[in-house]
Amino acid sequence: MMGGDFGPHSTIPAALAALDEFPELHLHLCGDLSLLEQQLRLSNHFPHARITLIGSEADVSMADKPSVALRNKRQSSMRRMLDLVEQGQVQACVSAGNTGALMAMAHYVLKMLNGLERPALVGALPSCNGQPVYMLDLGATVNCDADTLFQFAVMGAVMAEEVMGISRPKVALLNMGEEEIKGSDQIKRASLLLSECNDINYIGYIEGNDIFSGKADVIVCDGFVGNVALKTCEGVAKLILRRVEQSARQSLSRQLLSWLIKPFIKSLYQGVNPDHYNGASLIGLRGIVVKSHGNASKEAFLSAIRQAVREVEHQVPAKIKHRLEHVLIDKA
Amino acid sequence: MMGGDFGPHSTIPAALAALDEFPELHLHLCGDLSLLEQQLRLSNHFPHARITLIGSEADVSMADKPSVALRNKRQSSMRRMLDLVEQGQVQACVSAGNTGALMAMAHYVLKMLNGLERPALVGALPSCNGQPVYMLDLGATVNCDADTLFQFAVMGAVMAEEVMGISRPKVALLNMGEEEIKGSDQIKRASLLLSECNDINYIGYIEGNDIFSGKADVIVCDGFVGNVALKTCEGVAKLILRRVEQSARQSLSRQLLSWLIKPFIKSLYQGVNPDHYNGASLIGLRGIVVKSHGNASKEAFLSAIRQAVREVEHQVPAKIKHRLEHVLIDKA
Repeated sequence: MMGGDFGPHSTIPAALAALDEFPELHLHLCGDLSLLEQQLRLSNHFPHARITLIGSEADVSMADKPSVALRNKRQSSMRRMLDLVEQGQVQACVSAGNTGALMAMAHYVLKMLNGLERPALVGALPSCNGQPVYMLDLGATVNCDADTLFQFAVMGAVMAEEVMGISRPKVALLNMGEEEIKGSDQIKRASLLLSECNDINYIGYIEGNDIFSGKADVIVCDGFVGNVALKTCEGVAKLILRRVEQSARQSLSRQLLSWLIKPFIKSLYQGVNPDHYNGASLIGLRGIVVKSHGNASKEAFLSAIRQAVREVEHQVPAKIKHRLEHVLIDKA
Repeated sequence: MMGGDFGPHSTIPAALAALDEFPELHLHLCGDLSLLEQQLRLSNHFPHARITLIGSEADVSMADKPSVALRNKRQSSMRRMLDLVEQGQVQACVSAGNTGALMAMAHYVLKMLNGLERPALVGALPSCNGQPVYMLDLGATVNCDADTLFQFAVMGAVMAEEVMGISRPKVALLNMGEEEIKGSDQIKRASLLLSECNDINYIGYIEGNDIFSGKADVIVCDGFVGNVALKTCEGVAKLILRRVEQSARQSLSRQLLSWLIKPFIKSLYQGVNPDHYNGASLIGLRGIVVKSHGNASKEAFLSAIRQAVREVEHQVPAKIKHRLEHVLIDKA
């Protein structure tokens, strides 16, 4: 509850809204006990039959290095939360805290599923046809070899199939051209592995301009490229908003026009800014971890909780494990 | 003249407009002689005192692999054009043709400047403060080691300083976080090289969401990442246009609003779609090569010619060579 720019001010209202939405949901809220209690009392929800409070000390800050957080923050709300998942006391966890620290701690505490080498951060992006596109990795693993990219493709396909109900999701590799000869050696080899795998509906390479076109349901890339692409979207959206403002200053008619369209552009901005409108899931681990944006509002944190609920309902880690075993047997 | 989606239909009007704009410009137009003559006659500009026609055969198509173009298309307009640069008959060249073939041929025909290892494609992107941002590499070199990234930073700084007149341009490395510990080993080493170099005003790492913020004047990354980032911008712009159209169908008032703002959004789209609104330069070579977008209109091809004129006026290759020698002496 302590993560993100607003801490309990946005996480507590989101938690209460989630409890309203899901009558069978029970939440363990990890954080500073007195702060949490105070926030719950303010909204007349203390005590609450479906809330368990878990106290923490010395929480992870946004500036903490992952290695430092891992070593020194064993009493933090982030670590408490992951320990609860590891001990089987909860079935999923959600955090808006320091992404690097969360990834390092989750990897350390929960461990990888058998046969998987590296975790991936996967997010559902908007697309032109209205159906979400799963993109991974968005920043968990910087250097990916061909096998890792292949495993990401399998994990992404399971997410699209299980959570979104897309049958035989179209899987593509993000590349700098659609021709066979383009790209790095890892990408070429991953393409070969995917085209030989009958369990994956592999459609080949896709370029950056087609991420949102709906051509693919799952887009696979290494964490560096995925992170830059996602954040570039945010940059473009900001640039457009800025241009609208600048344009408003040029004339009265433009000012009027800008005033009319600004709410519209803002809603577009939210819609194309995937980093804000939903939680990204850290997958490949023996447990469900959803990362909400640090700047998350109540709505955004609530949608991250929803994402966690869906993953519990669809047993994503077990499905990934099962699919992976199937694919590996098939390959052998 | 044969490159791009429209060939002479857009390149000839752009060439004629450039001759009007620059009274001292002399153009060598390479392509199918009868087609070029026909187009010039149509606009009553044949013969033209400042146009020399250069005949070609078997032009490079958009589908040709770079290696095939290099081996088999020695009589093409693209190759003729590069040969003219190499022989010193012209001072710069512009093409809207197959990017991969152009890069391979230019590298082979013109060769690298002494001390440089790989060419880079550099483009001027829009920014929130109105001043362009030079980003490189946009797709010429897939895998870049630290030395190559360092050299790209030097080349980009020269472009910003000489062509845009920015004194001590701020140079940043594109990374997946601003902290020192983020990113690949190549990027960390490049960061070290840059921070030790007094000739470069290195400001550290920048993330994708800050590409257009104006924080940096020059942004350096490898060709894969740059290509994906640039094309993702195009994808976001397309998604926004699409959302405006979809929104129009929802109600009459929205339809009216969409009808009002569509031209506005379209002009924004052009403005944030750097791939379309300007030429990208292939730098690091012993000659000036400007690549116009394949889908270039007359206006876009004209702006690529303007870019070439500016680079001739500012002697960009000589300046890069000079700066590089200076930096290398300084380092030694």
